[in-house]
Amino acid sequence: MILIGERINGMFRDIREAIQERQSGPVAERARLQARAGAHYLDLSTGPAVDAGEQPAVMEWLVRVAQEATGLPCCLDSVNPEAIEAGLRVHRGKALINSTSADQERMDLLFPLAVRHGAAIIGLAMNQQGVPKDASDRLALAMELVANADAHGLPMEDLFVDPLVLPVNVAQDHAVEVLETIRQAKLLAAPPPRTVVGLSNISQRMIERSLINRTFLVMAMAAGLDAAILDVEDEALLDAAATANILLNREVYCDSFLKVFRKNIERRSQELEYRSQSSEF
Amino acid sequence: MILIGERINGMFRDIREAIQERQSGPVAERARLQARAGAHYLDLSTGPAVDAGEQPAVMEWLVRVAQEATGLPCCLDSVNPEAIEAGLRVHRGKALINSTSADQERMDLLFPLAVRHGAAIIGLAMNQQGVPKDASDRLALAMELVANADAHGLPMEDLFVDPLVLPVNVAQDHAVEVLETIRQAKLLAAPPPRTVVGLSNISQRMIERSLINRTFLVMAMAAGLDAAILDVEDEALLDAAATANILLNREVYCDSFLKVFRKNIERRSQELEYRSQSSEF
Repeated sequence: MILIGERINGMFRDIREAIQERQSGPVAERARLQARAGAHYLDLSTGPAVDAGEQPAVMEWLVRVAQEATGLPCCLDSVNPEAIEAGLRVHRGKALINSTSADQERMDLLFPLAVRHGAAIIGLAMNQQGVPKDASDRLALAMELVANADAHGLPMEDLFVDPLVLPVNVAQDHAVEVLETIRQAKLLAAPPPRTVVGLSNISQRMIERSLINRTFLVMAMAAGLDAAILDVEDEALLDAAATANILLNREVYCDSFLKVFRKNIERRSQELEYRSQSSEF
Repeated sequence: MILIGERINGMFRDIREAIQERQSGPVAERARLQARAGAHYLDLSTGPAVDAGEQPAVMEWLVRVAQEATGLPCCLDSVNPEAIEAGLRVHRGKALINSTSADQERMDLLFPLAVRHGAAIIGLAMNQQGVPKDASDRLALAMELVANADAHGLPMEDLFVDPLVLPVNVAQDHAVEVLETIRQAKLLAAPPPRTVVGLSNISQRMIERSLINRTFLVMAMAAGLDAAILDVEDEALLDAAATANILLNREVYCDSFLKVFRKNIERRSQELEYRSQSSEF
């Protein structure tokens, strides 16, 4: 399970203020917190507070700050292709582009960008008509993504199909369709594309956020989910993911499996921090 | 989701002692605790402490005590058909027989018993050869259960297929097969049989029991599980089930969905207790 830390996003006030004042401290600190909590990638989003003209420079700055602090690869999250390209140019290692829709124009722009930089890319199962209501319409758009990725020479494991999670308080019938889309996305190609969700959206503006998030994560993992953008600092959420890994036979059970999970996270983040601060990286 | 309280079982010391001394107090108290926690059925098992000859009388006594205390229907849990029949004779409402295996001899004995008493019955996806390793072999046995239940005139919704959950520390590869069996069991007939698991077995003798139980329950619910025999007094487990009901669109979301869930449980158990103590029941 690939964990993508959601927290470096201009939607959050501390990050928005840091971006506006170009203060690297809060960004680096949040990057380190997420790395130590278990993130494999850091999602980076300028959010709506930055003008379009400024977005490329801000994305480049975010990539530098986040990678110098942690050594982790980044998930470049922007609707502005210039911002994504600016981030890709300075990114070290394999980046993840977040995202293209299933609109032809976007795919023709972003898949070649991914291929050129050796990056993976998230493809949203939506287009200008919006988010489909059921699994079969989501899968039809996922198939567009698969066919276009293939045509552009993107390795299929570098395509992460995102079936689009909607808040359960306003679109309660969508969650089941998302699970079915995750399950069937694996049938679209061989080797299959991978799948990702923006998990926290399921509980937007709700009270029992952590409980709803971890319950849905576990369901999605059982359906075959490969990756999630999530609140990696939520310990109960990561415990649930670790337990699901055991039950799905992806990690070997031992009585102290939670401790082993944390220990592995700690070791990995220490190694990466060390390498990012040495010349090795 | 049908919740079957597991706790009135001679495997637990308090119940074993109560059975041996025919003390109805501890049994009635445990029945009430489970009813108030949300049980729809009470599993009743004499456990290994009672001789075969005594089992029918003990089962009859357990049914009387549990139903007088709560008004709930019972899940008559015994390998001894005479004990099950003794329980069925005094049981009020629709009982659930736990269980028949997929062995011809057992099915020919227990399906007619279920039909004669208008009871539902759990059918185990195992036979004298043991528990199959993968989903397809479990499903072959489930098909035996379906065909035989049908031949005996049991309504298909009264058959609960149990794919057999094994402890994840000794049979880690089975959990995924159980999930797949639950998913595919729905394809065996129309209308389909229902599915049930003995949940706590997944975490037998492990440290993180509650976490493992609730993680697996949610996965199984997403695969289509209808019922579980479980520790209904585990609040985190019931919170997870309530949240899964919301995400699977089986209950309508509201911000206080956990409170609504508890409130409904409280109202139902009060009504049943009242009726069981009046002449109405």
